[in-house]
Order: sequence, then structure tokens, then C-alpha cells
Amino acid sequence: MQFRADIVIMPHRALLDPQGKAVTSSMSNIGLPEIENVRVGKHIQLDVTADSLEVAEAKVKEACDKLLANPIMEVYEFSLAELQTA
Amino acid sequence: MQFRADIVIMPHRALLDPQGKAVTSSMSNIGLPEIENVRVGKHIQLDVTADSLEVAEAKVKEACDKLLANPIMEVYEFSLAELQTA
Repeated sequence: MQFRADIVIMPHRALLDPQGKAVTSSMSNIGLPEIENVRVGKHIQLDVTADSLEVAEAKVKEACDKLLANPIMEVYEFSLAELQTA
Repeated sequence: MQFRADIVIMPHRALLDPQGKAVTSSMSNIGLPEIENVRVGKHIQLDVTADSLEVAEAKVKEACDKLLANPIMEVYEFSLAELQTA
């Protein structure tokens, strides 16, 4: 079975997010002072082949822990859905 | 009212995503050949103050079009939810 994972990786709440801070101040400059608290993270989409949802979940978790996310600076969450083959 | 927006910005389907390609090949190297078609985009979270959901939506769209997304190379979508004040 093939699954599609949508992974969101964001900087830890407690940590400074310099990119987000920079974007927040740019908002005033382009006439959007109503926008605040910008935080910039990553969105990763991938396909995983596995026998079950549980196995797919374990693979995606492994990919996040080993390669995609930095646990010191980032938190991640993901959702998984089975890909329908036409 | 305060709203929280979650914006997903991904490279266009039709375009090469070199970062995604690089991550896809790294997956085999760390023992996860089951993972393919990795695409890397951005996830942006922000708060917007507006009188209504419609106004907030227009502000977020403006921010995406003017600053956050590159329409030539990227597509974006977002969701908005009212922030509950305690």
C-alpha cells in the first residue's frame, strides 16, 4: 500500500525564530501591521510504501527523527493518508 | 478578533524540487528506500487581527501574494481559525 504523509516541522515555541521575526517586521512595511507572530517552518510531503498504516507511521517517524527534523530546535507532527490507485 | 492562519507553500507540481530530490536520495542512504517523492515546502503560522473572517482571509491572501509565496514557482493554501482569548 502507498501512503502520503504531510509533515509539519516548526521551530520550538520557546526558541527565537529569526526568520519569523524578520517576516513579521516586513509585514508593517508592506502595509499589513495586523499580521503578527509569524513563525516559519517546513512542510514536507512524501510517499511511503508499507504493508499497513502502523508500519508507514513508524517509517515516517524514523525519517523525521533521523533526517528531516532537528529535535533540539524543532517540533514536528504529521498526518498520513492512503493513496488511492486509479 | 484575532485569527491564527496556517499557510502551506509548496513548489509547483510541474517544477523540479531539487531539495526534495536530494532528500529522496538521502532516504535510501539511511535505510528508508520505501520513502519516495519527497517535496519540501514552507509552513508559515501567523496571527492576524481583523473584524471578520472575510477580512482576515483577504489580509492573509495579500501577505501571501506580496511577500510569502513566489507565484511563479510556488502554490499556497491556508486555513484560518479564530483565536480564543482566555
